[in-house]
Amino acid sequence: MTYFGLYAQQHRGEEAAGIVVSDGRTLASRVGLGHVTDVFNEPALARLKGHAAIGHVRYGTAGGSDVKNAQPLLVDYSGGPIAIAHNGNLVEADAIRDEFEAHGSIFHTTTDTELIIHMLAKPSVLMRGREGVKEVMAALKGAYSLLLLTAEQMIAVRDPQGFRPLVLGKLGHSWVVASETCALDLVKARYVRDVAPGEIVFIDENGLTSESCVGEKRVRPHQCLFEQVYFARPDSVVFGDTVHEVRVMLGRHLAREHPVSADVVISVPDSGNSATIGYARESGIPEDRGFIRNHYVGRTFIQPQQADRITGVDVKLNVVRTVVKGRRVIVVDDSIIRGTTSRGRIRMLRKCGAREIHMRISCPPTRFPCFYGIDFPTTTELLAAERDIEGLRKFLELDSVGYLSIEGLLSSVSGPKENYCTACWSGEYCVNVDRHLGRFKAKRKR
Amino acid sequence: MTYFGLYAQQHRGEEAAGIVVSDGRTLASRVGLGHVTDVFNEPALARLKGHAAIGHVRYGTAGGSDVKNAQPLLVDYSGGPIAIAHNGNLVEADAIRDEFEAHGSIFHTTTDTELIIHMLAKPSVLMRGREGVKEVMAALKGAYSLLLLTAEQMIAVRDPQGFRPLVLGKLGHSWVVASETCALDLVKARYVRDVAPGEIVFIDENGLTSESCVGEKRVRPHQCLFEQVYFARPDSVVFGDTVHEVRVMLGRHLAREHPVSADVVISVPDSGNSATIGYARESGIPEDRGFIRNHYVGRTFIQPQQADRITGVDVKLNVVRTVVKGRRVIVVDDSIIRGTTSRGRIRMLRKCGAREIHMRISCPPTRFPCFYGIDFPTTTELLAAERDIEGLRKFLELDSVGYLSIEGLLSSVSGPKENYCTACWSGEYCVNVDRHLGRFKAKRKR
Amino acid sequence: MTYFGLYAQQHRGEEAAGIVVSDGRTLASRVGLGHVTDVFNEPALARLKGHAAIGHVRYGTAGGSDVKNAQPLLVDYSGGPIAIAHNGNLVEADAIRDEFEAHGSIFHTTTDTELIIHMLAKPSVLMRGREGVKEVMAALKGAYSLLLLTAEQMIAVRDPQGFRPLVLGKLGHSWVVASETCALDLVKARYVRDVAPGEIVFIDENGLTSESCVGEKRVRPHQCLFEQVYFARPDSVVFGDTVHEVRVMLGRHLAREHPVSADVVISVPDSGNSATIGYARESGIPEDRGFIRNHYVGRTFIQPQQADRITGVDVKLNVVRTVVKGRRVIVVDDSIIRGTTSRGRIRMLRKCGAREIHMRISCPPTRFPCFYGIDFPTTTELLAAERDIEGLRKFLELDSVGYLSIEGLLSSVSGPKENYCTACWSGEYCVNVDRHLGRFKAKRKR
Amino acid sequence: MTYFGLYAQQHRGEEAAGIVVSDGRTLASRVGLGHVTDVFNEPALARLKGHAAIGHVRYGTAGGSDVKNAQPLLVDYSGGPIAIAHNGNLVEADAIRDEFEAHGSIFHTTTDTELIIHMLAKPSVLMRGREGVKEVMAALKGAYSLLLLTAEQMIAVRDPQGFRPLVLGKLGHSWVVASETCALDLVKARYVRDVAPGEIVFIDENGLTSESCVGEKRVRPHQCLFEQVYFARPDSVVFGDTVHEVRVMLGRHLAREHPVSADVVISVPDSGNSATIGYARESGIPEDRGFIRNHYVGRTFIQPQQADRITGVDVKLNVVRTVVKGRRVIVVDDSIIRGTTSRGRIRMLRKCGAREIHMRISCPPTRFPCFYGIDFPTTTELLAAERDIEGLRKFLELDSVGYLSIEGLLSSVSGPKENYCTACWSGEYCVNVDRHLGRFKAKRKR
Repeated sequence: MTYFGLYAQQHRGEEAAGIVVSDGRTLASRVGLGHVTDVFNEPALARLKGHAAIGHVRYGTAGGSDVKNAQPLLVDYSGGPIAIAHNGNLVEADAIRDEFEAHGSIFHTTTDTELIIHMLAKPSVLMRGREGVKEVMAALKGAYSLLLLTAEQMIAVRDPQGFRPLVLGKLGHSWVVASETCALDLVKARYVRDVAPGEIVFIDENGLTSESCVGEKRVRPHQCLFEQVYFARPDSVVFGDTVHEVRVMLGRHLAREHPVSADVVISVPDSGNSATIGYARESGIPEDRGFIRNHYVGRTFIQPQQADRITGVDVKLNVVRTVVKGRRVIVVDDSIIRGTTSRGRIRMLRKCGAREIHMRISCPPTRFPCFYGIDFPTTTELLAAERDIEGLRKFLELDSVGYLSIEGLLSSVSGPKENYCTACWSGEYCVNVDRHLGRFKAKRKR
Repeated sequence: MTYFGLYAQQHRGEEAAGIVVSDGRTLASRVGLGHVTDVFNEPALARLKGHAAIGHVRYGTAGGSDVKNAQPLLVDYSGGPIAIAHNGNLVEADAIRDEFEAHGSIFHTTTDTELIIHMLAKPSVLMRGREGVKEVMAALKGAYSLLLLTAEQMIAVRDPQGFRPLVLGKLGHSWVVASETCALDLVKARYVRDVAPGEIVFIDENGLTSESCVGEKRVRPHQCLFEQVYFARPDSVVFGDTVHEVRVMLGRHLAREHPVSADVVISVPDSGNSATIGYARESGIPEDRGFIRNHYVGRTFIQPQQADRITGVDVKLNVVRTVVKGRRVIVVDDSIIRGTTSRGRIRMLRKCGAREIHMRISCPPTRFPCFYGIDFPTTTELLAAERDIEGLRKFLELDSVGYLSIEGLLSSVSGPKENYCTACWSGEYCVNVDRHLGRFKAKRKR
Repeated sequence: MTYFGLYAQQHRGEEAAGIVVSDGRTLASRVGLGHVTDVFNEPALARLKGHAAIGHVRYGTAGGSDVKNAQPLLVDYSGGPIAIAHNGNLVEADAIRDEFEAHGSIFHTTTDTELIIHMLAKPSVLMRGREGVKEVMAALKGAYSLLLLTAEQMIAVRDPQGFRPLVLGKLGHSWVVASETCALDLVKARYVRDVAPGEIVFIDENGLTSESCVGEKRVRPHQCLFEQVYFARPDSVVFGDTVHEVRVMLGRHLAREHPVSADVVISVPDSGNSATIGYARESGIPEDRGFIRNHYVGRTFIQPQQADRITGVDVKLNVVRTVVKGRRVIVVDDSIIRGTTSRGRIRMLRKCGAREIHMRISCPPTRFPCFYGIDFPTTTELLAAERDIEGLRKFLELDSVGYLSIEGLLSSVSGPKENYCTACWSGEYCVNVDRHLGRFKAKRKR
Repeated sequence: MTYFGLYAQQHRGEEAAGIVVSDGRTLASRVGLGHVTDVFNEPALARLKGHAAIGHVRYGTAGGSDVKNAQPLLVDYSGGPIAIAHNGNLVEADAIRDEFEAHGSIFHTTTDTELIIHMLAKPSVLMRGREGVKEVMAALKGAYSLLLLTAEQMIAVRDPQGFRPLVLGKLGHSWVVASETCALDLVKARYVRDVAPGEIVFIDENGLTSESCVGEKRVRPHQCLFEQVYFARPDSVVFGDTVHEVRVMLGRHLAREHPVSADVVISVPDSGNSATIGYARESGIPEDRGFIRNHYVGRTFIQPQQADRITGVDVKLNVVRTVVKGRRVIVVDDSIIRGTTSRGRIRMLRKCGAREIHMRISCPPTRFPCFYGIDFPTTTELLAAERDIEGLRKFLELDSVGYLSIEGLLSSVSGPKENYCTACWSGEYCVNVDRHLGRFKAKRKR
């Protein structure tokens, strides 16, 4: 079941995958580098016996892919074996890590996740049971949706600001916890509700109990809008909204903010599909399929070295010439990160005879780093970081380009505007990140 | 370059892949089971040095996947090494094979393709050069688009009825031959024209020359419409028409033939995408994305045995609940073969709250076997083989079902209606196939 | 170079292999399950750049082969990255581990090795530099030959009783440390001397310095004689003696202790080769090759299930019929653990016509568990554990059997007799192991 | 069973392996590149169901390892499916092949084996049943021990000169055919007799019948002595003699022909093991083990590029220093082909302190090519091809070298001297091979 859940959420991380299972007495683990289907085969799954399990797909950062960082992380502490799966990114983790090391702790991985285990394993924490867990949560800063598994219970935690999604589902008498509802759908579980920001959910043989780690004091949520724009699957319900519907609305707002006279609206499939519908409906300009995806695109395609003459070939998309030839074309996509792939596709359209090309992006220019779990490239590589709209248009070789405003974004979701994080577009971080920004800028200079 | 061409045409065959290359003196080969990306890696490609090459992706028949049947087939005959890649299916091949065996020939594979080589290698054929090749073509019956490669030349052949596509492209001063134009696009070659039915094209250091194997007598083409409906990529130009545009027209005709009052039109992605556009435009009913594809669907997903409770899970598509809930939904797809997958998806829609479900299929019910290269299941498994429309509707648990008529089909392509093969829908075969039909029916009884 | 060293010492552990390398600034690691040649290929080695490295081959215990337990273990502590490779087995490790856990430490592996790192990482230890290391060594009980690697230095440690071997070599200006001299030979390094029991060797850019962790007090060494009898390669110099020569002497003593009238002496290759020479020379009975090894014996041979009729087939050795037929045969081997393989071979000899079969074993009956790093099976499986000589002879279906005495053993090595551990034969352990023996016996009862 | 038989005979060919099995109705096949254990796993063997099977291990020639050449070769002819496994090498095969091609035949492989099938499949041959088979055998020249399998019967053939071995065994009521008796031993079959030179054995449900293809005329056998010297396993009975005993005799004759005063005789393991016994016994000089084999030597060991300093390392053998230091050493091996490996080992001995080194080789200098199935390198690479004894001694850096004479060789086997082939040493071929020798010399010049 956990295997299916990971498979449905493979888009959330392709670097590594793992499952830890409890049979009530002990925990068994399998983790590995690669996709869920690479890491697990029938014998591997057959060996993972038990009645409770947690899984993880790891979202790889550019450099170090090391199986040691694969999750769930399974260790022994005085309470026995414990496993943890973590979505998000802590801030100020280094300081806490330094402190632990100064007291003699050793670290096997470079993940924040191991730090959380160290905090939980402290005798002073354990002694105080659930209060201890709450205490640890209070000390953590940043984004963390966590699943913990011991022989006897599963604990689900979402940070007080709720940066990352976490949902609760039910399948018969069993509880299911996942990042996205598409995982519940695949295992035919029913979506019950989101784990609330700051909530700790305990699940054991007696069922589910819940506490809040924020107590009396109210913390404003900072739910990540990039999930809605780009990261989550369109069939998922995230922060209470169906992602596809949010994206259709983004397209509508985009059409209102950046109208243009044209003959056809096409999507960059599949990322721009939902917003394209909204743009076409709002503008009244007919939609067509200008790009066709190659369904066999995967990780193993090699670009043979002797193929110099055809480097830069786009093996993923091809243009339907008849759709764009001699036409004024609006191309809708969800975001532009580095811009080189987009520019290649715009050139393809131009070569196939498009008369005008207008690009519309269903979010603002992405200009700032994320410290809460989305791994953008450094500012130097981020196309919009130091370009204004005209600079972006020129780089992309477009007749016009339009990005949705932050207001447009916030008008497309159902929650109160102040409950969302828009830092990667606005640069307004919810906590003091000067220290990190400094380091980020330093990184740029190298 | 050939590797890229195969990659672009992977959809035409997933069972095996291969490339044979000529360096002017001899031929080198690599073939293997699996996808193009499974069979080739950098060292394998680096070993294939030369200036001319042919490749093949094999479309697997249910039973025997054996690497011996992988193509191109490379053998030695009195003229030296020769390789052949074959798309299509011969009829009456068994009789010719029996005759060869009676004269002492041995066969290493069970393919028609080896038979063609035996015919070409006959001294009486070789002695007569190009005339000999034409003579062999005259003796062959059925569907064959062929590529032959010797150390000195490449020969492209398309059968007189032109069942399967074959196109000529140009890249600089080099010629490129492929089944579909999407292969030309990927290697940035320019589409020149189709190889004509009955044409033999010779390419060597002196360039390209062409002859017709049909001579004076005129043979009516029988170009396979299933290519347009289902098999070819939408971005390809097949038999002179852009496949996507043909499919949009199929959708328009479908809307005219089978209108229904509804709230939304959705596609079964990606097979129904183009026809859905036509249906929506013609009917005026808004299109939306009711199904979302899992991009990680591949061959290696395992259905763990212990997952009894969730068997029959559709790992490929999920429903966007908000698109269909409480609505009257039209679902468009390109064809239905066995029907079980379609029924599962209709049930998903129903479970997600669709009020009415009307399915529209952009071709007639597929009722008859193909003897020219499309591998349909036996009649017993073919949903429409022995069901009328009402039977189909009931099986699929639909509120209504509508299949496009043959007339609708033929109105969507630009060639003369009599130039297309519609046998799998009409049962009208262009040659006497009683013998095969008998065998086909016999197979059913077992 | 380290790769070669591991390859030469592959016989010391086949379960897992690994290398950690320092480039002066940081450490890079590769570990994996399987043989050295499974874990490393050219790209993997190319990625391990630096000027200092340690490696490890893991000697698998029956049950849990988990890549997490593969060594060298690489972690971060307050001093930066540190790696450790450990040969041997600690006693009373569980108690220390419990104590660490009680103070909040977490453990990623089930190895003793991780415990040593925890001890080293304690602030109180680190603060005291080399003294700290000595302090830790003083607290450890059991067998440990260790290699530690940090960015700046390598540390080699051998426990005060010197259970396991550890040698120092020199290659140009570089130092090499290994378990056996055969590793030095392969990399063309010169054997310098053994690391002494209780010695700590520090190697950095300033060269080599050494200290003793035992200080004034004299600890009697307990060097493992099973290394000489069975474990080490015959071409290695272990504890100052060439293993092959020791084994030839074992054979001589064996012939003196257990003479028998016979026609030929044969070895169980290759384990009995050296002792056979000694036995033949001392007895004057000619040696011949009665068994032939299949050189392709490896781990991947499968015993197909349908092959019921030929189960129990010995794929490793075959008899040379002419050597044994009608003869009185003395068979020499180094040890008998479970006895089933030996019995199978004796039956083969009998079937090939041997008239009498006399087995001679170049060590005493192995009756007791080893707590210092040799992984014998439990007593139930240990053939000699509860059988007297007559019982052994009957089980093995021999005409006579003779085991070398402990005195014979000790007379074959050059060191003072009290400097060797003979616990697995005598049951005389150098430290109090009652607790372990109890557990060992408890294990038997299950 | 066949899998075990191949495993026992793995030394006869490491390039490819395969099995074809008959269930009485049809044949199923699995062949692949690599060792027997690489090609077969449990599922692969489980799929090969039937009551009769033939297998093959392919002895790779330097250049083209192509799975197409793997055997048994399975094809269809007018009589149905047929499979063939071939040991040996035909002469004048090219001419017959050319003739077949001239008549229109095509060849999928570059093996002689396929040619034999073509000859058997000729209608004129088949029509005449067993007589036809005999007729084909009469037309073949060169070395061939064959196994043919059809749905109904198995046929074993040995060429009239009996170059290669072929033995008959019995297991219960079943017949077993193999190249060497070590295969019979492993499957616990009983050795019955050799298939005679020129004999054809038919095995079907009625049992075994036999005919001779040589008829009245007597053909002198030319059994390959290189099998006895080098190729066969010492535990096999080949041409009526136990290989180990023959080699012991070779060693005795060697001692008589090339005595030398020395302290110790050592073997190059395992190739020189048997002859070393003979040399030591005859000379009275004690034998010792001067070289130790690394048991993990296999095909996958990589020589990392950065390891410049230790190139030429001998990962297979290491010297036991105490055995050779200060001593006059006789080193016995079975043959020297290129000489570079031997020279490396002699240098190792010298470096370890050997005072004198005398090499003794248990066959004459190998100077001529083999056209009957042993793949020697070209003359340029063959050490002895153009060197006299003094030249060999100098190249090998020895104090003395002695090769056994042809007379010594022939005195060590039990058959009449004229029944053996010694061409690779004497240059006396049994048939006219001028044409081949010419080509062989031509090859040298390049």
